[in-house]
Amino acid sequence: VRVAVLGVGLVGGSIGLAARERLGCEVAGWGPNRPTLERAEELGAVDRSAASVAEACEGAEIVFCAAPVSVLPELARQALAASGRETAVTDAGSTKREIVAELGGDERFVGGHPLAGAETAGVGNARADLFAGARWYLTPTDRTSAALQERVREAIAGLGARPQAIDAAAHDRLMATVSHLPHVFADVLVGLAAAELSRDSELLPDVGPSFRDATRVAGSNPAIWGDIFAANREAVAAAIDDAIVRLDEARALIRAGDAGAIAAWHAAAGTLLDALDSSARARGDEG
Amino acid sequence: VRVAVLGVGLVGGSIGLAARERLGCEVAGWGPNRPTLERAEELGAVDRSAASVAEACEGAEIVFCAAPVSVLPELARQALAASGRETAVTDAGSTKREIVAELGGDERFVGGHPLAGAETAGVGNARADLFAGARWYLTPTDRTSAALQERVREAIAGLGARPQAIDAAAHDRLMATVSHLPHVFADVLVGLAAAELSRDSELLPDVGPSFRDATRVAGSNPAIWGDIFAANREAVAAAIDDAIVRLDEARALIRAGDAGAIAAWHAAAGTLLDALDSSARARGDEG
Repeated sequence: VRVAVLGVGLVGGSIGLAARERLGCEVAGWGPNRPTLERAEELGAVDRSAASVAEACEGAEIVFCAAPVSVLPELARQALAASGRETAVTDAGSTKREIVAELGGDERFVGGHPLAGAETAGVGNARADLFAGARWYLTPTDRTSAALQERVREAIAGLGARPQAIDAAAHDRLMATVSHLPHVFADVLVGLAAAELSRDSELLPDVGPSFRDATRVAGSNPAIWGDIFAANREAVAAAIDDAIVRLDEARALIRAGDAGAIAAWHAAAGTLLDALDSSARARGDEG
Repeated sequence: VRVAVLGVGLVGGSIGLAARERLGCEVAGWGPNRPTLERAEELGAVDRSAASVAEACEGAEIVFCAAPVSVLPELARQALAASGRETAVTDAGSTKREIVAELGGDERFVGGHPLAGAETAGVGNARADLFAGARWYLTPTDRTSAALQERVREAIAGLGARPQAIDAAAHDRLMATVSHLPHVFADVLVGLAAAELSRDSELLPDVGPSFRDATRVAGSNPAIWGDIFAANREAVAAAIDDAIVRLDEARALIRAGDAGAIAAWHAAAGTLLDALDSSARARGDEG
């Protein structure tokens, strides 16, 4: 099987490594940055470096587009233009509504999003097992070719991921809540702590583990996250709306000072978290 | 040195273990629950079990009160009533303004708060090294005996902690921001995720590491946290006020959709987090 990888950073490089090692694919790579592309070839993430998108896509059965979400629609459009009628073009962007709205009318395009790789960046961190056990959402539309969708599904399962079809808008709302909002909360917590400490120079920046865990992702990969927030701005803004409503409720409850009522509210969150965890475990093997 | 520990759960039990092992103290223990007290004695957290607060405090140079914040003022009051003029009475509560307002007029009372032990509970998890390297705030007032404060300070340094004096109200504001608010955020995130998943039964509870880290403390120790939120209700409500202001700003920024401006905002949080981290490291050895 021949595949093309457009964009050979952490995610694209890992797709290349896994496709070569796990599926025996021949991988053509392209990227806008020549030294990065050469490094990807050195690391074995691609068999050969292409001089253009068109050259990379030539003869490929699947084209993976792995670039920042702000440039993905244009990159995938170029890939579709350069590819034949039997080529599937997919992407690895963290938001899906925008790109699917633009390209979902082409039966060869299958939007995708692997839940992996947000923590680091760069082809130097690419690993063949980056997607092992990770959920990989696919966002086909009514227009998407069933055969090409199945081809992509099989390929990403072969990379070790757990494919799951989902509506693009539902995907973006879910990610706004479980991924993008935690990043906003982390940034807000850090800003509040810094303001508190600057107000009183005698205070020490001693924070407990809850603060460290809650703020670990604060400020991570600013360019990538600026793009993600902007691409998913409506869903993230709606998630913040919902969060403010709940914070307002929590504030009223806490201000009223009934320890038993507050404990019951807090315990309910623990019950929900346990339910999420066991539900995630129960569905862990689903294809 | 003779010390008394009133309340022999995780924190009180660890104080007893550390005082015996590290300081060679003779530890008298008391707790409202007889089986727990017997277990503490079996585990070596106390030398002897007292039948009453008064019996435990007899002859003690320092009395540690380690109970839920809702019962701490009354417990510490009993300890002060039962103790002689040369006995220091301190506590390990997570909030300080309330207890200091009630007891700070007694020169023998030194409010305290070790930043340790929030993750687990029960004397079965007690460890002699629970406080090793941990900040331990002390909240003396103008009325507090300097000699008794110094005695407590030396003792907690001997337990392995890093003592630091701080104003009780400033302590509670700081904790509201760096500890209590992260718990509120965790609960809110879990509630939002559960609501999102219940809205669409096809969605999977697949969440990334940012969600898992941000929600790890959701619903933890409900009784303890109900008490903490209630005791620190004004400062927590004020922290939520500030958080909503910042969320409102973040929402406007994200909704405007300028990826560069969003990236700059996100990057600023990373810079502040780095500054907090290096400041914490630089002050790590301070006594």
